[in-house]
Amino acid sequence: MHQDSMNVPLPTPEEQAELNDMYAQMDQMHMKPLWNQIGNLMPEHPTPEAVPYKWDWSTLHKLAERSGELVPVGRGGERRAIGLANPGLHGETHVAPTLWAAIQYLAPGENAPEHRHSQNAFRFVIEGEGVWTVVNGDATPMRRGDFLLTPGWNFHGHHNIASEPMAWLDGLDIPFQYKMDTGFFEFGTEHLTDEATPETSRSERLWAHPGLRPLAFPGAKPSSPIGRYAWEHTDAALRDQLALEDAGFAGVVSPGHAAIRFSNPSTGGDVMQTIRAEFHRLRAGASTLPIHEVGNRVFQVFEGSATIVIDEKPFEINHGDVVVVPSWKKWHLEAGSEGADLFCFSDFPIFEKLNLFRSYSPEGI
Amino acid sequence: MHQDSMNVPLPTPEEQAELNDMYAQMDQMHMKPLWNQIGNLMPEHPTPEAVPYKWDWSTLHKLAERSGELVPVGRGGERRAIGLANPGLHGETHVAPTLWAAIQYLAPGENAPEHRHSQNAFRFVIEGEGVWTVVNGDATPMRRGDFLLTPGWNFHGHHNIASEPMAWLDGLDIPFQYKMDTGFFEFGTEHLTDEATPETSRSERLWAHPGLRPLAFPGAKPSSPIGRYAWEHTDAALRDQLALEDAGFAGVVSPGHAAIRFSNPSTGGDVMQTIRAEFHRLRAGASTLPIHEVGNRVFQVFEGSATIVIDEKPFEINHGDVVVVPSWKKWHLEAGSEGADLFCFSDFPIFEKLNLFRSYSPEGI
Amino acid sequence: MHQDSMNVPLPTPEEQAELNDMYAQMDQMHMKPLWNQIGNLMPEHPTPEAVPYKWDWSTLHKLAERSGELVPVGRGGERRAIGLANPGLHGETHVAPTLWAAIQYLAPGENAPEHRHSQNAFRFVIEGEGVWTVVNGDATPMRRGDFLLTPGWNFHGHHNIASEPMAWLDGLDIPFQYKMDTGFFEFGTEHLTDEATPETSRSERLWAHPGLRPLAFPGAKPSSPIGRYAWEHTDAALRDQLALEDAGFAGVVSPGHAAIRFSNPSTGGDVMQTIRAEFHRLRAGASTLPIHEVGNRVFQVFEGSATIVIDEKPFEINHGDVVVVPSWKKWHLEAGSEGADLFCFSDFPIFEKLNLFRSYSPEGI
Amino acid sequence: MHQDSMNVPLPTPEEQAELNDMYAQMDQMHMKPLWNQIGNLMPEHPTPEAVPYKWDWSTLHKLAERSGELVPVGRGGERRAIGLANPGLHGETHVAPTLWAAIQYLAPGENAPEHRHSQNAFRFVIEGEGVWTVVNGDATPMRRGDFLLTPGWNFHGHHNIASEPMAWLDGLDIPFQYKMDTGFFEFGTEHLTDEATPETSRSERLWAHPGLRPLAFPGAKPSSPIGRYAWEHTDAALRDQLALEDAGFAGVVSPGHAAIRFSNPSTGGDVMQTIRAEFHRLRAGASTLPIHEVGNRVFQVFEGSATIVIDEKPFEINHGDVVVVPSWKKWHLEAGSEGADLFCFSDFPIFEKLNLFRSYSPEGI
Repeated sequence: MHQDSMNVPLPTPEEQAELNDMYAQMDQMHMKPLWNQIGNLMPEHPTPEAVPYKWDWSTLHKLAERSGELVPVGRGGERRAIGLANPGLHGETHVAPTLWAAIQYLAPGENAPEHRHSQNAFRFVIEGEGVWTVVNGDATPMRRGDFLLTPGWNFHGHHNIASEPMAWLDGLDIPFQYKMDTGFFEFGTEHLTDEATPETSRSERLWAHPGLRPLAFPGAKPSSPIGRYAWEHTDAALRDQLALEDAGFAGVVSPGHAAIRFSNPSTGGDVMQTIRAEFHRLRAGASTLPIHEVGNRVFQVFEGSATIVIDEKPFEINHGDVVVVPSWKKWHLEAGSEGADLFCFSDFPIFEKLNLFRSYSPEGI
Repeated sequence: MHQDSMNVPLPTPEEQAELNDMYAQMDQMHMKPLWNQIGNLMPEHPTPEAVPYKWDWSTLHKLAERSGELVPVGRGGERRAIGLANPGLHGETHVAPTLWAAIQYLAPGENAPEHRHSQNAFRFVIEGEGVWTVVNGDATPMRRGDFLLTPGWNFHGHHNIASEPMAWLDGLDIPFQYKMDTGFFEFGTEHLTDEATPETSRSERLWAHPGLRPLAFPGAKPSSPIGRYAWEHTDAALRDQLALEDAGFAGVVSPGHAAIRFSNPSTGGDVMQTIRAEFHRLRAGASTLPIHEVGNRVFQVFEGSATIVIDEKPFEINHGDVVVVPSWKKWHLEAGSEGADLFCFSDFPIFEKLNLFRSYSPEGI
Repeated sequence: MHQDSMNVPLPTPEEQAELNDMYAQMDQMHMKPLWNQIGNLMPEHPTPEAVPYKWDWSTLHKLAERSGELVPVGRGGERRAIGLANPGLHGETHVAPTLWAAIQYLAPGENAPEHRHSQNAFRFVIEGEGVWTVVNGDATPMRRGDFLLTPGWNFHGHHNIASEPMAWLDGLDIPFQYKMDTGFFEFGTEHLTDEATPETSRSERLWAHPGLRPLAFPGAKPSSPIGRYAWEHTDAALRDQLALEDAGFAGVVSPGHAAIRFSNPSTGGDVMQTIRAEFHRLRAGASTLPIHEVGNRVFQVFEGSATIVIDEKPFEINHGDVVVVPSWKKWHLEAGSEGADLFCFSDFPIFEKLNLFRSYSPEGI
Repeated sequence: MHQDSMNVPLPTPEEQAELNDMYAQMDQMHMKPLWNQIGNLMPEHPTPEAVPYKWDWSTLHKLAERSGELVPVGRGGERRAIGLANPGLHGETHVAPTLWAAIQYLAPGENAPEHRHSQNAFRFVIEGEGVWTVVNGDATPMRRGDFLLTPGWNFHGHHNIASEPMAWLDGLDIPFQYKMDTGFFEFGTEHLTDEATPETSRSERLWAHPGLRPLAFPGAKPSSPIGRYAWEHTDAALRDQLALEDAGFAGVVSPGHAAIRFSNPSTGGDVMQTIRAEFHRLRAGASTLPIHEVGNRVFQVFEGSATIVIDEKPFEINHGDVVVVPSWKKWHLEAGSEGADLFCFSDFPIFEKLNLFRSYSPEGI
């Protein structure tokens, strides 16, 4: 920690009065001395105000359902989305200083009207089906396990054609863009331009073929052109990694721990400029090494159960539960008796691009 | 602007009670509805809380002098630096949401002890000489017009060997790293490791030869390896641009407006990952086109005078005055009768790297 | 064209004798004047010695079969591969100045021993199955339509476990590396290290999931980590593009012309540093626009038939036929009555990386 | 080395006749077997046909002078340039497989007319002054020690306003572009568009300020925008490195060996896409470590003398002498009793961009 004071004798009362007078003048002129605040502004390592926290899926879902009864969805409010507010962040709806996470809920027959914004967004479907997301006129099904993108400044809306309501996880970089003053927003049509319900999106038909890219669209794109990462592919990739491990070959991250990163096929990089997304599968009993990382992670349990230990505190997490790991908090995962499938998103691309990323494993690599 | 409400009838008292009950439950569970806050969180264009503001050099300098009388410099407080606090930012010492600007003051014989931090820092010398900054053991003179770098995680200190005090502008990305939870800090030696006072730094002898790089240090470096951009070179580059304009050739940014960007010779990019630095010279009577830009700019007048119009409000600026242009505020410069030399720094590299930069000139290109 | 001479009177006989004497002296000192050869060395546009040429599959296959009867495969000769020698290239086995194309033939039970070389290599399987290529110990099946990689400096061998011989197209950058003096070669085991015959390679299990990359292998790789691009995916991608065209959406390169580029999923770029590979599908009657391009293309017809017009000369091409388009020769394709599927490889990445690529469409874009 | 034959018994006369018949058929069909040529095509390491060779400056200069008497310079021949023809390269005017080196000679009052070509070119001035190179209308002085660029597709000419003839070294990638079929050429005006003789070029006034770039020209450029790297800067950079060495600090490549790379200030990379240029200064008695490198180097001695040992053979080199080190030939330098200043250019950027570069130091790092 920073030392609390200069290496000098305490000021006399007269000196203190003079100091007080000077500080008052500074205050009036919108100036502030560094020497009184450096320990707070420039800590020895990240000391986030955000805290580790878990939201239970049952609570989230119940309140989402309740809002479905009480609140219509439409222009103005735009989305029936309930944001997770990190208890350390003074009531702001920020799951972490840079990230937004919310449960969005759409009842049968409802439409979430079209708009676009510079904020990057994704959806992860924890359960259910029957909603189509329409991105720039491309209708994209949403089904259990799917990961969907609506990168910044693409028009998008949602409509539910099923007989059941549907709820899913929304992730955005709203807090980052809010703090950075970079946000733009534009309304689109009030009703969706396309109510088609195809089996697959056009974006997938163009871009979701392994290692193949359409010749008509060359070059690097800032965000992934794949609108939906269908669950069947994610699941197959994870199964393959574990099968390779069983056969004695490389592939898993660590013993019993398979994982993929969702990527932009035009660059091999992250799906969006500010957000990374991954999927982790741990065999029963497997665990990960404790690690400190610059940046914030949010996990949602898809299947199975696990314990995540953050800053020495264990959180039991089950289907649908959401948990946040703030920057530099040591964490590790221990899978439960049936193993665990976890979706994860983070703000790591921001820090990697700015040369600010660091990590540290107390137990070595 | 966002519409204030859903396109629906107002709730009845009974409905409102149910809503209130639901909102109270959400609050207790650390959840918040998007529909009540979207207009604030996701504005149609950036609506910064930071305001355009000017700090007078005479005030800055006078208070710096006063602090030199009352406050010792040493371990703990680390630096006698007085930060500029944007009046819109709730008393935080942030000149803009991402940037720190301060006047640092060092009396004859004083030492600012060594430390290092992940925050990127520079100094711009508005006047005076006699201080040496020591970066990783490389003593670098500070003279009028010089621009000096101490990129993240390099040990650095300052010592004043002159018979006069010296004051200069410090710029850092402290607010950005504070909000992002990326900051690391480490104390170095209490007294400088090197009290040499060479005419030029070793970093300049290696890297400040135009278009030539030392063969022994190949590859791209995250920050510029040049420790000091000496005023004589900056001045010559600006004079050359105006001479080319006089001779009818390309070079200036716009009529009567010469400008250079300080760059990393190992990449051609910005000097540091989060901070851009430029120097502008306007002939008497020259002006720039009004423009909106994503990102925050801070100007300090080096010589001459100008009017900067921000959000339709004019600020008269003279030698040493510091002015901030928050994100997306329309601004332009009009040089005074003797022209104007202005140092400028900004956070634009952050937004360019994340594909969030935009600009708009109402009067065309 | 360059003018044939200086704008000066012809030399007198005495002058010519002096010139001849000087040229003789130069010759002896290993010097040569530019002025006598500039028109040849620096033409107004590329004037390749390589000529457009077609090799019939029936001839290629018949001679490959014959060599299977007469020539054993083993250490020393290494591969039973018959290279295509462009008739313009003075008997060198270069299909184009930079590229090698060959038919490789392996009889039942035969092994092509392991080796590695800096030359980048691929295989395209025009027909048949039953051979496995083993790359660094990863056994990879070869089946009709598959595209396989063995990038530079990876050990590889082949073994045929089928009851039938198998022939395929080999493509390499041998001529480029030969001319550039960059080639390295190392023998591996005489017999394959792995005689496994899995349904799919390990490289595919790790990397051939659309938009998903294994977390354990981050970063950009110089060559694609996918060992086999299975035909089922290529075919599906092309079908999808044509289906999108039928539905009125973007996707095809031009009317009736679907095409994909094989890509490196860790970068989005070409599969190997020197070689680009594509697959084109033209509907019956579809054609492409005439174009000049810097670089050399080689096509092999997979299914159907087409006419390729190169430098105004038509070549009828059918299943298995190989045709080469030298640099800057104008070419276009016209599909036959049943449409055409064509594999294509080229050296374009070399020229794009060195800023030497150009193209020109006489009929506009 | 490759084994000379398959591991099989020699063919019987009957078998040989059948083989001969097959080879004849192949030949007729423009096909050739790999197994008879793989040892040549794919050697264990680069085995260049180019040989190490030295050209004496006195011979070069005398023949350049003689050509000045006998051959006019003008449209058609374009340049009075005498190319160095590596004795191993079959009479081609290639100093190395990829590179052209020539002595260009211009008498007082002469003009070399304007043209442009895709080939990248530079000039290095071994001695003299009085010629201006005009690049896209920018007149650039040529003086002893200067290094000048005319990157691909920029119009350029030369004119000599001095009372003395002048000779210099031209370097281009003519052989590379000739072999690759990438060359374009266009005539410009017969007489120079600009006969100005400024002290410095406009390109230097814009770009040759250390670490400063003109704001009006953002972004990365494929070639360096600096037209002339003036000797005074090169010399100062080398002196500074040796002074740092004397003071005990890092900077030189190895003991007594200072060196700079000429670089593109908009990227930090090489001056042109295909050519690297460096300047080396060795103290008296200093030497470099033996090394093998993929790629070709050409040295010209500027001052002093040295021995360069290539493939175990020593070459004594003095002022103006040119020597070539072909790919993968082991080489090292030993400075003479007065030290040595050497200009060096190479084709290494080609191989680095294509992931084909390798080096090996038998004596360690």
